[in-house]
Amino acid sequence: MKIKVVKDILGANEQIAQKNRQLFDSNQVFVVNVMASPGAGKTSLILQTIKRLKGKTRVGVVEGDISSSLDAEVISKEDVPVVQINTGGECHLDASMTATALGSLPLGDIELLLIENVGNLVCPAEFALGENIKVLVSSTPEGDDKPFKYPLMFHQADAVVINKIDLLPYLKFDVDAFSKAIKGINQKVKIFPVSCTTSQGIEPWVTWLLGQMGKK
Amino acid sequence: MKIKVVKDILGANEQIAQKNRQLFDSNQVFVVNVMASPGAGKTSLILQTIKRLKGKTRVGVVEGDISSSLDAEVISKEDVPVVQINTGGECHLDASMTATALGSLPLGDIELLLIENVGNLVCPAEFALGENIKVLVSSTPEGDDKPFKYPLMFHQADAVVINKIDLLPYLKFDVDAFSKAIKGINQKVKIFPVSCTTSQGIEPWVTWLLGQMGKK
Repeated sequence: MKIKVVKDILGANEQIAQKNRQLFDSNQVFVVNVMASPGAGKTSLILQTIKRLKGKTRVGVVEGDISSSLDAEVISKEDVPVVQINTGGECHLDASMTATALGSLPLGDIELLLIENVGNLVCPAEFALGENIKVLVSSTPEGDDKPFKYPLMFHQADAVVINKIDLLPYLKFDVDAFSKAIKGINQKVKIFPVSCTTSQGIEPWVTWLLGQMGKK
Repeated sequence: MKIKVVKDILGANEQIAQKNRQLFDSNQVFVVNVMASPGAGKTSLILQTIKRLKGKTRVGVVEGDISSSLDAEVISKEDVPVVQINTGGECHLDASMTATALGSLPLGDIELLLIENVGNLVCPAEFALGENIKVLVSSTPEGDDKPFKYPLMFHQADAVVINKIDLLPYLKFDVDAFSKAIKGINQKVKIFPVSCTTSQGIEPWVTWLLGQMGKK
């Protein structure tokens, strides 16, 4: 019975996600679902990406949080359209919440929509929003064992951004072992070691992102 | 309808949690529910706590993970009874999973049971396991804005252990502002800044824990 309820919820979510995707496609908006643990650097990566893409592509942002609008306030300083979704306790965004937020965004003026999901390595992986790609931000202080502990999230990601590489001298974190563990779960994934504090590694990430959009 | 289902689940969980609690009480076991983001340092804090309490109290551990038994393997080297729960995708432990695990633990030989929950700042806060206290491990690299973003978890905690203070020189993290934000949500909470890498601050945490158990 419990399993049936879960299947129903995921099935209904998938239908709404497909509608979102049609809306995105008809407006030629490329959509990225950005997921991570709390504090891994989702907002920082979005800020870095917006700064690098200024003049290259028009960006919009959806900020998902359980409560507060702290991140949306930071993003709005970059002069891009941003909508805050407060999930009211829910541990992930879903397609329906996303659909509601889209009404407040000028989709015709946006080429790239970055959706920041709730900080959580579990539930967001199960709910499609209508995105083109999923990006997982995984930060070095979290430890290099995370792919073994949260395999679905690493399996679903099109790209893993390894953030906070500026802290590597102070941590036990093996980038090669971590990358190998991810590839063991997901052969096709792209991996980008970066520091959103120093900007190291951001350029390859943004270049790849533009390539995914069909831009160079 | 959805709300009703959720209420039913939480109500059923509460009943089983109370039974667990009776079992713990009748065996004079003090139980700590350890919660945190992925990679904040739950296992490291448990290891440090076991080491400090050797000869002072008999410890047992329940390790909750979505998959893998990495943490249980590390803990078992400390020569304490440990049981692994794999939640099979679920983003939190619940009272029923905990009850099942208890059958594999020598409760009569344990005075302190440390239960490591799934790495997640959202869902574990909603599910009682039968514990005496809840402890939240929050690490400095996650940022000092987390109380605003995950208020329920900070509200529910009896103690917040601020881990990874050895990284403070390399981060923008204001311990005072963070502590003030926590106290704004939860006046009674105890706060322990520690480093599980250098052992700094572990002694006050363990002393407090023994006090909670009625020991000195």
